[in-house]
Amino acid sequence: MSSSFFSDVDAISFVGRDADPDALGFRVYEPDRMVLGKRMEDHLRFSACYWHTFCWPGDDVFGDGTLDRPWQASGGDPMALAHMKLDVAFEFFSKLGVPFFCFHDRDIAPEGDNYRESAARLDEMIDAAAAKMEETDVQLLWGTANLFGHPRYAAGAATNPDPYVFAYGAAQVKHVMEATQRLGGANYVLWGGREGYETLLNTDLRRESDQLGRFLSLVAEHKHKIGFEGTLLIEPKPHEPTKHQYDSDVAAIYAFLQKYDLTDEYRINIEVNHATLAGKSFQHEIATAVAHGILGSLDANRGDPQNGWDTDQFPNSVEEMTLALYEVLRGGGLSTGGFNFDARLRRQSVDPTDLFHAHVGAMDVLAESLINAAVLIEDSTLKGFVDDRYKGWTGGLGAEIAAGKQSLESLHALVTEGGIEPKPRSGGQEMLENRVNAVLRR
Amino acid sequence: MSSSFFSDVDAISFVGRDADPDALGFRVYEPDRMVLGKRMEDHLRFSACYWHTFCWPGDDVFGDGTLDRPWQASGGDPMALAHMKLDVAFEFFSKLGVPFFCFHDRDIAPEGDNYRESAARLDEMIDAAAAKMEETDVQLLWGTANLFGHPRYAAGAATNPDPYVFAYGAAQVKHVMEATQRLGGANYVLWGGREGYETLLNTDLRRESDQLGRFLSLVAEHKHKIGFEGTLLIEPKPHEPTKHQYDSDVAAIYAFLQKYDLTDEYRINIEVNHATLAGKSFQHEIATAVAHGILGSLDANRGDPQNGWDTDQFPNSVEEMTLALYEVLRGGGLSTGGFNFDARLRRQSVDPTDLFHAHVGAMDVLAESLINAAVLIEDSTLKGFVDDRYKGWTGGLGAEIAAGKQSLESLHALVTEGGIEPKPRSGGQEMLENRVNAVLRR
Amino acid sequence: MSSSFFSDVDAISFVGRDADPDALGFRVYEPDRMVLGKRMEDHLRFSACYWHTFCWPGDDVFGDGTLDRPWQASGGDPMALAHMKLDVAFEFFSKLGVPFFCFHDRDIAPEGDNYRESAARLDEMIDAAAAKMEETDVQLLWGTANLFGHPRYAAGAATNPDPYVFAYGAAQVKHVMEATQRLGGANYVLWGGREGYETLLNTDLRRESDQLGRFLSLVAEHKHKIGFEGTLLIEPKPHEPTKHQYDSDVAAIYAFLQKYDLTDEYRINIEVNHATLAGKSFQHEIATAVAHGILGSLDANRGDPQNGWDTDQFPNSVEEMTLALYEVLRGGGLSTGGFNFDARLRRQSVDPTDLFHAHVGAMDVLAESLINAAVLIEDSTLKGFVDDRYKGWTGGLGAEIAAGKQSLESLHALVTEGGIEPKPRSGGQEMLENRVNAVLRR
Amino acid sequence: MSSSFFSDVDAISFVGRDADPDALGFRVYEPDRMVLGKRMEDHLRFSACYWHTFCWPGDDVFGDGTLDRPWQASGGDPMALAHMKLDVAFEFFSKLGVPFFCFHDRDIAPEGDNYRESAARLDEMIDAAAAKMEETDVQLLWGTANLFGHPRYAAGAATNPDPYVFAYGAAQVKHVMEATQRLGGANYVLWGGREGYETLLNTDLRRESDQLGRFLSLVAEHKHKIGFEGTLLIEPKPHEPTKHQYDSDVAAIYAFLQKYDLTDEYRINIEVNHATLAGKSFQHEIATAVAHGILGSLDANRGDPQNGWDTDQFPNSVEEMTLALYEVLRGGGLSTGGFNFDARLRRQSVDPTDLFHAHVGAMDVLAESLINAAVLIEDSTLKGFVDDRYKGWTGGLGAEIAAGKQSLESLHALVTEGGIEPKPRSGGQEMLENRVNAVLRR
Repeated sequence: MSSSFFSDVDAISFVGRDADPDALGFRVYEPDRMVLGKRMEDHLRFSACYWHTFCWPGDDVFGDGTLDRPWQASGGDPMALAHMKLDVAFEFFSKLGVPFFCFHDRDIAPEGDNYRESAARLDEMIDAAAAKMEETDVQLLWGTANLFGHPRYAAGAATNPDPYVFAYGAAQVKHVMEATQRLGGANYVLWGGREGYETLLNTDLRRESDQLGRFLSLVAEHKHKIGFEGTLLIEPKPHEPTKHQYDSDVAAIYAFLQKYDLTDEYRINIEVNHATLAGKSFQHEIATAVAHGILGSLDANRGDPQNGWDTDQFPNSVEEMTLALYEVLRGGGLSTGGFNFDARLRRQSVDPTDLFHAHVGAMDVLAESLINAAVLIEDSTLKGFVDDRYKGWTGGLGAEIAAGKQSLESLHALVTEGGIEPKPRSGGQEMLENRVNAVLRR
Repeated sequence: MSSSFFSDVDAISFVGRDADPDALGFRVYEPDRMVLGKRMEDHLRFSACYWHTFCWPGDDVFGDGTLDRPWQASGGDPMALAHMKLDVAFEFFSKLGVPFFCFHDRDIAPEGDNYRESAARLDEMIDAAAAKMEETDVQLLWGTANLFGHPRYAAGAATNPDPYVFAYGAAQVKHVMEATQRLGGANYVLWGGREGYETLLNTDLRRESDQLGRFLSLVAEHKHKIGFEGTLLIEPKPHEPTKHQYDSDVAAIYAFLQKYDLTDEYRINIEVNHATLAGKSFQHEIATAVAHGILGSLDANRGDPQNGWDTDQFPNSVEEMTLALYEVLRGGGLSTGGFNFDARLRRQSVDPTDLFHAHVGAMDVLAESLINAAVLIEDSTLKGFVDDRYKGWTGGLGAEIAAGKQSLESLHALVTEGGIEPKPRSGGQEMLENRVNAVLRR
Repeated sequence: MSSSFFSDVDAISFVGRDADPDALGFRVYEPDRMVLGKRMEDHLRFSACYWHTFCWPGDDVFGDGTLDRPWQASGGDPMALAHMKLDVAFEFFSKLGVPFFCFHDRDIAPEGDNYRESAARLDEMIDAAAAKMEETDVQLLWGTANLFGHPRYAAGAATNPDPYVFAYGAAQVKHVMEATQRLGGANYVLWGGREGYETLLNTDLRRESDQLGRFLSLVAEHKHKIGFEGTLLIEPKPHEPTKHQYDSDVAAIYAFLQKYDLTDEYRINIEVNHATLAGKSFQHEIATAVAHGILGSLDANRGDPQNGWDTDQFPNSVEEMTLALYEVLRGGGLSTGGFNFDARLRRQSVDPTDLFHAHVGAMDVLAESLINAAVLIEDSTLKGFVDDRYKGWTGGLGAEIAAGKQSLESLHALVTEGGIEPKPRSGGQEMLENRVNAVLRR
Repeated sequence: MSSSFFSDVDAISFVGRDADPDALGFRVYEPDRMVLGKRMEDHLRFSACYWHTFCWPGDDVFGDGTLDRPWQASGGDPMALAHMKLDVAFEFFSKLGVPFFCFHDRDIAPEGDNYRESAARLDEMIDAAAAKMEETDVQLLWGTANLFGHPRYAAGAATNPDPYVFAYGAAQVKHVMEATQRLGGANYVLWGGREGYETLLNTDLRRESDQLGRFLSLVAEHKHKIGFEGTLLIEPKPHEPTKHQYDSDVAAIYAFLQKYDLTDEYRINIEVNHATLAGKSFQHEIATAVAHGILGSLDANRGDPQNGWDTDQFPNSVEEMTLALYEVLRGGGLSTGGFNFDARLRRQSVDPTDLFHAHVGAMDVLAESLINAAVLIEDSTLKGFVDDRYKGWTGGLGAEIAAGKQSLESLHALVTEGGIEPKPRSGGQEMLENRVNAVLRR
């Protein structure tokens, strides 16, 4: 497709907060603006995704696709359509101005009649993508293999009762990791959408756990073998489509990584809506990953607080994202990771420009949140309070306990001898919440 | 109190399934009945708890106590009331016929004006409990220290910002563990109701995690020092009263135990309603603990599937408990653990006999569930299906993968060379569910 | 298709509780067995549905269809495939022995290029269905129009901002109601899957409410005009696919029917999983509909208590369904309604026999629940307790209050003059739960 | 208590957005600032409550009170303590600068040994409150009777199985409504915390519904009899403390009011956290009440999106409250209602100033939200889009349908004759969300 799909839209530019409400442009996001000594673009490392944005037709469980997607026309030549999709995708990435994109093998190249054909199709499309990347300067945040869509994976890939399915998944991962390496990808992601169970009645949990451990070990070994320098990432989700997914949240993955001695090999890719489905806030999951040293990358979207499935809406809460970014900055920032928009339009958003409205709004939300978070960091409001709150642990009895110089017995003696009656001190929650709000309304 | 509190109730005996509906007796539970070669009582190891049963007055967030609890009369001598409570409790344990009970230090002995007085009171009551235990043959399943009720623990015990609170908690644990040892307790439990946060704004997650690790290490060291032979147990709960509790579920605790090298020291005490608050089924949590080798003991109750707090109702679903007991039996049964009724009456259940109805019904539910689970084990219906489902992993390619003899590269070659197109096989979920139902309606 | 699709399965017969576990047959359900003076079949009025059972290919949000459905082959003649599907469906209904089936217009006949073609196709298939019904004696529980799948309905049918969509939906309903009448359908159902909103930002709630009121009024008027003698039913669901659906639960529909003066025209079709998504138990929704005199029919399935979307699994809990059937029997039973299996296989249940396992198991669960509920009715255990509990309202002060003979003033005088200090009486919850369990383990 | 309890705090004044972060003052709220032609204070009509703020000691289900509340000292004279509490409360109201307060009878005056004594105590305290109100110019937003705390109400007040409890509740309501009238209260509220059930096994839903209808009718009759000119309000909540509360949400109350012909007598008092417990957003509940013409007043607080009980935290989200206020303004504003802070401190917020931080922050959040909502109203961004979206209903076919001039038959004819193929139009959700965000970051 040499002509443009988004012909009504020019490259998105910065228009500022006071621009006409109808203007389609960034009101906050300025790639070169410096925040805490680093370019905004380098903090946020935005990425658009292939799947929701170009592979989802606007259908849902109860209805057909609503979106205009000529590259999904039935009856056409699949590879011609895949090239058309690639053209449109890179037109979009370029006009939007995201520095990165992400893909699954089956997003970018249609599955063939057999593995060999699927692989050949992927190779052809990777070549084409490489050319597009060179042409547009868009880079690859991460690649991944789709080990959940095909019926062969209905009972899992790594955790399938059939080892030949494990083998099939292993083959796909090898291929896509090498494709990712070829495209200079900064990370390689694993999301185990089918690595869980529908019912414990037919499931051997221990065996499936060991299978998953084996699979992840093989992936790490292959990374070293081929010298891929990106980060390996695992993405947690508690359920949907399965009843229970083994990688349910940061804590579950951390347990798993320790059990199979993989803590040095993997980091975590946290998605907002997956966190909330797990009954955790996004901020909590980031803070937990930072506390364990395993934060990798972020999937930016939002769920619906009243609904219980993955709605994958675009992020639009500066209040929520400011706290998330505060934890990221406290943890030293994203290294090879980024903010990938794992988000999709609402089914009624049928105008081609809606895709731009959605991404532009989300980028502005994150840009504003970054600026807010930087203020929180710089003015040390929260950190000062926290440091003061725990200062008892930096010396005296606290330091002795931390250093292993006290026992239950010695502490018991201390308490028994009397005089210790610790007095509660205000946690200051409401005051701190006001401080954050004051920053938000700066 | 020399006279009886439950004067309307005789010792509960077995009356059988066909007894008069008004009869208060066991319709299923027979301590000596053999199930899979072991006495029912030895499988289930029932325990009644002190707190809900004798310390809770029938109040809730919106209303005052409704229950007749003379030992909670205001204005009386606290130690005289504590002895009255002990008498009533052991009258209840005896008449009910539970082999075990459980307690917190503050359940059995009221807190004094200072630590020394509190400790002396506890010692006095432990002496009295020892005499009661000898008199009634009721044993101690576990003891525990209440590190959550007093205002000093509002911001946590082990994870408090103030190291003197850590010390205070440590002193209590030392004392109660030794009291538990003295009473021949089979386990010592830690539930960290305040070991979490209300807001991340004032919280240092990494530091609090390390504090908790230190605390648990000290407890394990002390156990060895005094030669306590019971099992150390941690009880997960995701939230309530805190926004987030660090011991949120089995996976989170397993991560924690590995991080602080404590997997050999602690096992897990799983509560039904805590599991469901964490978004997991009770069966899931048991199966997960069994898969990791860390199942310890069980708190039997139930939540309300439509409400989001800890309702702590008595278990009454044979369907739910059959699957739970199936996992327990598959995992080799409870060792030092048992089924403790961490359950309370509804606030309107104001008759003294209601306490018996509640426990008797719950014991029958678990007894029936045990019998059902034993049938599932004996007829191998489920296991046969599962073994067959995974048989590809017991030889050939599966065994090679498991043994580390395959790599991504070798598997990729295998798949590429063709001929591998795994065909999905029915997971048989509906059929297996019917099999379980057939056992339930045996 | 003249040959059989389910060639491995014979007509399902009663085999009894002690049959071989591998036997595929009813262990409980006997159509002619008398329960409370009525045939089991006439109590339960089972119905199988067209959509999940024959139109769903086994796909989900993350994966493709897994089921063998030759009538969904791509590229075939749509009407030839529709006839093949009809043959298979009636083979299934017959072999299973359900007295009823249900359908949407788009289930039974594919949408054409324009309304006229769609209508002609539907007429052709209705003719074919009439012949099949005569041949097999399977009857129609209800018909309905699919006003949610096509993109034109993305923003609702009755509540669409575009009145031409309202008109389109009205046309479909007219046609399907007449088709339902022709097939002797006992009810006509409306489920408003898109009658709700995605965001309040673009929604005029009051206007949409009035549109829906208008639509339902037109439907009722047409029913009378054509002399359709079946019952009009509305099916509640709180959300999914929309963020919020106006017909969210029984109470919301009752408010709506009163507002638009439609309480005499409509009754409610309650689905288990929709009730639980609304935060209500199935028993609650039935009891509420009975209390208001608006119970119509039931969709039997189950949700997953840990997941937040419509899993539509087959019912398998006798405990849950016994209480549901108890409320149904208390309310006088289902009149024109029935138990329709709005349930689907798990995606891994790929054997053709799995469809039989699922339905047979579910029918047995409901049959057993019916028998249990009848025992509860006959022995008056619950009713006796309840009648006694409220007996104060049948005479004396209670009757005076109920009859409007007391005012706040007179009651205030009564209380002020003293002597009234009502004493709580046990609600007996645990005891009653035990009674129910005793019936279940009869 | 003649001396001051909050001696560290002066009357709160406006300090502006740029004030020192440590300053305790309003950064946004200015009572006299005009918004849409009305004073901010008159829009928001802030009220502080007696119960959480002065009656809650800082306890929770697992722990004792943490707050310094001298008026809750055990052993003191109850009426002396009640007067002390009144002094502190009015000191607080005055210093904070809220124009209104709210109370339950049992908040302001302790229950006596019998009804007569309780009534006399209430009268004494109402006298004292009247004096305080005159002295401080603080007015009464609403009064209410506590029909849920005492054990006599464990099974409900209006819906109690015992008519003498109904009578007791009726007496209390009469007294408090008259007290409210005497204090010039703008509304009288009913919250039926116990008007629900714990289990359907012991409950007669229809009877309890009629009892509640009778009770509310008596209350309305008494209002007219005494000429009370305030508004009667009902406050919805779905559960907690009961399993199910009849007044579960706006829709359920609307159904109820219609059934008992009370729609002209009652309006609704919506609480944020009650809405979210019911699975609805606050905005939804307000918009629904406005659409039905039954919006009365608002309880401002917030829940925790990850926890399932009533956390009653202070509101702190401008994003959430802007949309709520937008609906309020669209609905014509609050008439006799107001924003009452039904919110409590966190248990660790033990400093006396924390109470000020909490309220000041919340008032600023609502003031900022009001300003934002006014911008949304003034620039017609949302309304313009919505009006345009539904414009098809203002003439032509839409108007004919709305006016009852079309039937299913006429619409069917229209569609059949062809040419109608409605095309979906973008719902513009992402674009509208961006517009709202642009207003928020103005």
